[in-house]
Amino acid sequence: MTRIEIPEAPDRAWCEAMDRADPLAPLRDRFDLPEGMIYLDGNSLGAMPKDASAKAQDVVTREWGTDLIKSWNSAGWFDLPVRLGDKLAPLIGAGAGEVIVCDSTSQNLFKVLSAAVAMRPDRNVLILEGSNFPTNNYIAEGVAAATGGRFSVRLCEKDEIAGAIDADTIAVAITHVHYKTGHVHDMAAITARAQAAGALAIWDLCHSAGAMPVDLNGCNADFAVGCTYKYLNGGPGSPAFLFVAKRHQGQAHQPVTGWWGHAAPFAFEPGYRPQTGLRQFLIGTQPILSMTLVETGLDIHLSADMAEIRSKSMALTDLFIRLVEQRCAGHGFTLASPRDAAARGSQVSFAHADGYPIMRALIAAGVIGDFRAPDTVRFGFAPLYVGYVDVWEAVERLAAIMNGGVWRQPEHQAREAVT
Amino acid sequence: MTRIEIPEAPDRAWCEAMDRADPLAPLRDRFDLPEGMIYLDGNSLGAMPKDASAKAQDVVTREWGTDLIKSWNSAGWFDLPVRLGDKLAPLIGAGAGEVIVCDSTSQNLFKVLSAAVAMRPDRNVLILEGSNFPTNNYIAEGVAAATGGRFSVRLCEKDEIAGAIDADTIAVAITHVHYKTGHVHDMAAITARAQAAGALAIWDLCHSAGAMPVDLNGCNADFAVGCTYKYLNGGPGSPAFLFVAKRHQGQAHQPVTGWWGHAAPFAFEPGYRPQTGLRQFLIGTQPILSMTLVETGLDIHLSADMAEIRSKSMALTDLFIRLVEQRCAGHGFTLASPRDAAARGSQVSFAHADGYPIMRALIAAGVIGDFRAPDTVRFGFAPLYVGYVDVWEAVERLAAIMNGGVWRQPEHQAREAVT
Repeated sequence: MTRIEIPEAPDRAWCEAMDRADPLAPLRDRFDLPEGMIYLDGNSLGAMPKDASAKAQDVVTREWGTDLIKSWNSAGWFDLPVRLGDKLAPLIGAGAGEVIVCDSTSQNLFKVLSAAVAMRPDRNVLILEGSNFPTNNYIAEGVAAATGGRFSVRLCEKDEIAGAIDADTIAVAITHVHYKTGHVHDMAAITARAQAAGALAIWDLCHSAGAMPVDLNGCNADFAVGCTYKYLNGGPGSPAFLFVAKRHQGQAHQPVTGWWGHAAPFAFEPGYRPQTGLRQFLIGTQPILSMTLVETGLDIHLSADMAEIRSKSMALTDLFIRLVEQRCAGHGFTLASPRDAAARGSQVSFAHADGYPIMRALIAAGVIGDFRAPDTVRFGFAPLYVGYVDVWEAVERLAAIMNGGVWRQPEHQAREAVT
Repeated sequence: MTRIEIPEAPDRAWCEAMDRADPLAPLRDRFDLPEGMIYLDGNSLGAMPKDASAKAQDVVTREWGTDLIKSWNSAGWFDLPVRLGDKLAPLIGAGAGEVIVCDSTSQNLFKVLSAAVAMRPDRNVLILEGSNFPTNNYIAEGVAAATGGRFSVRLCEKDEIAGAIDADTIAVAITHVHYKTGHVHDMAAITARAQAAGALAIWDLCHSAGAMPVDLNGCNADFAVGCTYKYLNGGPGSPAFLFVAKRHQGQAHQPVTGWWGHAAPFAFEPGYRPQTGLRQFLIGTQPILSMTLVETGLDIHLSADMAEIRSKSMALTDLFIRLVEQRCAGHGFTLASPRDAAARGSQVSFAHADGYPIMRALIAAGVIGDFRAPDTVRFGFAPLYVGYVDVWEAVERLAAIMNGGVWRQPEHQAREAVT
């Protein structure tokens, strides 16, 4: 992977030259984004592939409207979870038959945590990161409650995790890239540490899949989950994914035993008999329309080189940090992400006491990032459709807002629900 | 409700006259079905509303493509489960704030069964119908296994259910209309019997919602689940629904404790604090595109009179039985559904030793029904888009197939996966 150096004082001309030389630049044309908008929120909801509209039309009018139930076979609806999983697998270092696309990330985490807990009956602690996106920790609490308190959930911060793993540990379940700060956990080291202690390693890839190289099998990960609507551009709430290492398939079982996870779903047998493979992690009928659009995003990613994606991602985030610190110096921003690009995902967060109105003013100026309470402004840089000039322009607009005090205007101060 | 009498020997002219007089006939134009196809499988996957295509286009290109994350608020994505639930509620006799649209039927059943089991800690039997669509029984097994065998699942057939309820019963969880035979359970009587014994009554409405009047609150039901892609025309795999009676909200808790079920989902609190209302039964992000299309189907249903739907449904199924028994007499069909329309949902099944090739030949002739092993041919009659002449024409084609021995042709005998 090429490491792109950022000049001491980058200017617009340098950004323009970088865009011209960018090997990923042609892929920008495969997305539709509103004219003039700089979209730095692909880590919340990825941009729309141009093909999505025609695909949705085809699925609705032909697959559903014309072919109707025949499409379960003829359009391959039944096999979508597995077929899309196989397509996604190379992006996260998984093999064929190890990934399925289905349900939501929360549900998939419930399944893999339940499976892991059952695989370590003599252990009683599950380790998660305390400052993680809360749903992971809530789900872990729910699994613990459902087992009648057979185990407890221990919340650690980043640097405490390795030290917390011991002979009582069932599993560590960590989000690879932190949703708020963007810090990256060392998947290989934590997995090895967990397994050396006889524990399992479960990875949440919501903020890494599609944005950076992930090597689940290279790291010997046990389970993983993640979403497809952020950097994978699957559309709002598109089904999530789930990875079960080959060695666990047939051994690992999840408790929501629906008919899609049955060994013979169409035999309509009276008793449940689990599939021996990955499909035991399926439950019931999938939302086909949302599911089919996952493929349009995956197809773009599969035509890109992941090393180039990472290289550009590091450069864009380095550039953004440098420009904000230069051009908004003295305006109270404190970097809330790792300064070292290697320790950072594809996002940058700054803390600012007035983060909320600043983000509102920035959104009004056409630069879309998001705000995370209490004081974080967060910016995601999806290398497939964000360019160097976009970064330049985003900081131009931010600097204008700070210098002009625009964010102090009443319309930016008013609170509303923030997504 | 008007009970429509079928003549002793119905002819095509009578069917044509009935179609002309049908108050629901104008609604047929709000669906797209392929020219010449007679679609009698709306109990598997409902037909496509004409509005679905434009709706999908708008959601993909404008709500996703242009408005991006803003749509979580501006397009009301966050509130879709509740808003669509409120829209669906009157179709099943529920009140506002008692129904949400989310996840799959299997998942929703897992949630309500888990909640019910926790509400009856001193009881140890859950009663289901043995011949029910198997996923319900599989899910019940899964809930039992997850609680370490705290309770057992007792499978009864239709007439044994009431007698099986006793002081050990946690709940009865019954599918209102049987997926295969179409028999209707007496919701009021079974609910009353269960509650008299201190048990809960849980109803699966997959084969009744949208096809016949359902009165959950009139029957004092405790919980219900159901799907939106059959008679409600929500599209392939569209999210299911879930009903929690007002009196149980805040008392009933489900174990998949994701962030959408948290009392303050955007406060990102470290610990789980359940919503006190219906939203505790939400888990995580919903498949928005599939979800939005549920509304196009609901809007058509809300413009129809449910008494007229039921009246026509009974007439269509009565007519179909009469015509098959007259025109295919001596060809080996045995009625596998209740003969009394009042005891039947909106479907008719016949048993036939050669049901599989017969259904294949019929499908090849443009009449779409389905086959359920080992010997059932099943026909659904969605009153919003199936007419009397459709029934006449379907039996014409069936009679031609039987009289001509068409189903004996090799191409109809070959087995393939049946959906």
